[in-house]
Amino acid sequence: MKIPEEISAHFEAGTLIAAIAQDAATKDVLMVAWMNEEALKQTLETKKVTYWSRSRNQLWVKGESSGHTQKLISLKYDCDGDALLLEVEQVGAACHTGERSCFYREIGSDL
Amino acid sequence: MKIPEEISAHFEAGTLIAAIAQDAATKDVLMVAWMNEEALKQTLETKKVTYWSRSRNQLWVKGESSGHTQKLISLKYDCDGDALLLEVEQVGAACHTGERSCFYREIGSDL
Repeated sequence: MKIPEEISAHFEAGTLIAAIAQDAATKDVLMVAWMNEEALKQTLETKKVTYWSRSRNQLWVKGESSGHTQKLISLKYDCDGDALLLEVEQVGAACHTGERSCFYREIGSDL
Repeated sequence: MKIPEEISAHFEAGTLIAAIAQDAATKDVLMVAWMNEEALKQTLETKKVTYWSRSRNQLWVKGESSGHTQKLISLKYDCDGDALLLEVEQVGAACHTGERSCFYREIGSDL
């Protein structure tokens, strides 16, 4: 599967791309992680969402150890090719804390 | 308004934080941009979403020139404090191309 040039250019420059996972059913934003070219290709080929772990410096098949996998439903990219939006089917919790979404805390809830 | 320590720590380390804007009504993801501490504080105080422009190296009040403003409805942060999720009321197009969302193109629509 061909990766659009606007995205590849960032990978060639050594930049990781932000990847947002959104629940395909509820449209809740679940998490943000990072992809390099290999992670993006593997995600598209396997439909198992795979990120690049910046802390472990290796590919990270989401849910490989926890079982909390993400199945890829659709993959969009933004106008300047440096962010991805993945619609996923999330098994269990997306967050390592056990919360469904990593965005479970709010600032200034008196807004 | 107090900014949680988990977030401040990233600013103190000189790191910008990814900020995802999500349409409060439709839950569509509109765009991803970046915030420093000043952008975050100004957003919370004015409710007018304000990013840090990496290309112009200055604060960027979204829609200031185009009129396509974002009114802050809620602001969440993720488990490791390096990403923000903003629910917004978007006036007009979020994307500079005129599209409602920056994520208007899909890879592998034969998924």
